[in-house]
Amino acid sequence: MAVTVALDAMGGDHAPQMVVEGAVRSRNLNPDANYILVGREDRIREQLERLRVPEDAFRIQPATQVVGMAEKPSVALRTKKDSSLRVGANLVKSGAADVLVSAGNTGALMATAKFVLKTLPGIDRPAIASLLPNVSGQTLMLDLGANVDCTAEHLCQFALMGEVYAASVLHLKHPRVGLLNIGQEEMKGNEVVREAGERFRDILSNYVGNVEGTDIFLGGADVVVCDGFVGNVSLKSTEGVAQMLTRFLREAFNHSLLTRLGYLVARPALKRFRARVDHRKYNGAMLLGLNGVVVKSHGSADAFAYSHAIQVAIELVANRVNDKIRSEVAKIHGARGV
Amino acid sequence: MAVTVALDAMGGDHAPQMVVEGAVRSRNLNPDANYILVGREDRIREQLERLRVPEDAFRIQPATQVVGMAEKPSVALRTKKDSSLRVGANLVKSGAADVLVSAGNTGALMATAKFVLKTLPGIDRPAIASLLPNVSGQTLMLDLGANVDCTAEHLCQFALMGEVYAASVLHLKHPRVGLLNIGQEEMKGNEVVREAGERFRDILSNYVGNVEGTDIFLGGADVVVCDGFVGNVSLKSTEGVAQMLTRFLREAFNHSLLTRLGYLVARPALKRFRARVDHRKYNGAMLLGLNGVVVKSHGSADAFAYSHAIQVAIELVANRVNDKIRSEVAKIHGARGV
Repeated sequence: MAVTVALDAMGGDHAPQMVVEGAVRSRNLNPDANYILVGREDRIREQLERLRVPEDAFRIQPATQVVGMAEKPSVALRTKKDSSLRVGANLVKSGAADVLVSAGNTGALMATAKFVLKTLPGIDRPAIASLLPNVSGQTLMLDLGANVDCTAEHLCQFALMGEVYAASVLHLKHPRVGLLNIGQEEMKGNEVVREAGERFRDILSNYVGNVEGTDIFLGGADVVVCDGFVGNVSLKSTEGVAQMLTRFLREAFNHSLLTRLGYLVARPALKRFRARVDHRKYNGAMLLGLNGVVVKSHGSADAFAYSHAIQVAIELVANRVNDKIRSEVAKIHGARGV
Repeated sequence: MAVTVALDAMGGDHAPQMVVEGAVRSRNLNPDANYILVGREDRIREQLERLRVPEDAFRIQPATQVVGMAEKPSVALRTKKDSSLRVGANLVKSGAADVLVSAGNTGALMATAKFVLKTLPGIDRPAIASLLPNVSGQTLMLDLGANVDCTAEHLCQFALMGEVYAASVLHLKHPRVGLLNIGQEEMKGNEVVREAGERFRDILSNYVGNVEGTDIFLGGADVVVCDGFVGNVSLKSTEGVAQMLTRFLREAFNHSLLTRLGYLVARPALKRFRARVDHRKYNGAMLLGLNGVVVKSHGSADAFAYSHAIQVAIELVANRVNDKIRSEVAKIHGARGV
């Protein structure tokens, strides 16, 4: 099946340049895929010419408006009906594209996707889910910032969707699902988290109880569930500490002639290390719970990172992940008699 | 002024061994300080004899009960009136000790300290505050887990206490205080955070607005304020990612003969790096807002880490940090006309 990817060419700190470059990279890896670049035609053509891309490599879908990175989602939704975001979401809704990838304003992307595509039956709010590296593989974490206030019911919906997603992309029969909390004991946490924990026991096939922040990276669970405020702070805190450690490592090797010599000899190992922890390889978060597949790239992504987000999108479509989520949620929805 | 430190000898995963060893280390650095080991006399004497510590080096204050690491704080408070925690807090209250250090059950320590010492006038709840490394110095972060549900008023109290604490220990005239949120724009976050942000503008001398998780380690603020759930998850997430990165670095150097050779030559730089990022040096969080100084050590601390928590305690007392917080909070409390 040839996957058709719609790319919001105007979203992201370095758009449209990095979007077009990312698309070129992605196309080299996925010769069967089709790409639609959505946005201001003149600016997209400019990039295509600069890169000497053949005329027929990409389709362009014109969209005259651009949603700013700091624009209020509700305003963007109301006033920008011809934005690259909105037009891209429409392509997914009509079936002209299988998936939309955007590095634009997260809130506006979420609001637009929800408005155009609607949520799946039984799902109140979409969640942002991403794979993160852990010591022995990958952890799926959600929500990473779509929902700042969550009820226990929302967390239950996230857990169910996360379970199906992880089973599909990590090839696990019964992924271990953990609830992010501040201690392993059941009494820990606030009321919402405690209620969610009780309900997780009933609805999940392999609930491992509370997990702590450390477990995300030490492999204590395959799926880690939390509200979007906590998830976003946790993710960005780890990005910060990783950047700090990388800088300290560089400074340690820059310290003296001896340590600089050490760097030269240690280069193969350090290169290996850097390649393994390159956060750009983990770019591409899915908006779970929509009637359609939407992938969010980091706003500051470069072309390499962006091409990874496109890869996530292609694999989600190829693995029919959203169909699986739809049918699993419908099953539980039915069983609950709602 | 000779500082007298009370140590909860029974609290922590490796107590009393690491407490006694940590005390010995600390005593070598602070020959003028006095140490009181609180707990089961037989077990403490056993450790002192093993380490061949002179008879008069430490005072022992017997306490027959021990609070377990997973014990419910309310139960510990009600049923364990002769626990090492409780007896230690009593020593601070009576003035027999200037500060209590414990690596025990955080919830029980918090509940006991609050019950015995009471909070400062104008402070509803104590907060756990700790210095964390950042790229150019240190960031004070609070609350790190004492309060899972906070109102905007609580966050205001944390911010004020954090400002005074940072001014004192980081030697800053007007520390930059930031509110931990999921974006820099004012509209971001949940209702509590948005209300707190508005009030921070009025009560702080150098409020820098919302900060994100990355800023904690990239130096975007001197003080980062959040509720205890978010703070605890953020801190533990960064511990997890740091452990993962350290492991990946080791594995990269262990990969082949060439990389192992690289390790030998790179050792001085790697040693330098490891020393700089050794989390044990950041052990020791203050319980802010009490009528008395209490320092919490990580439960899994070893003797080296524990001696650092004792050092934090000694410096807090020597710098009269709690007196400064008391008088600043009283000023604002008075100005507000409460």
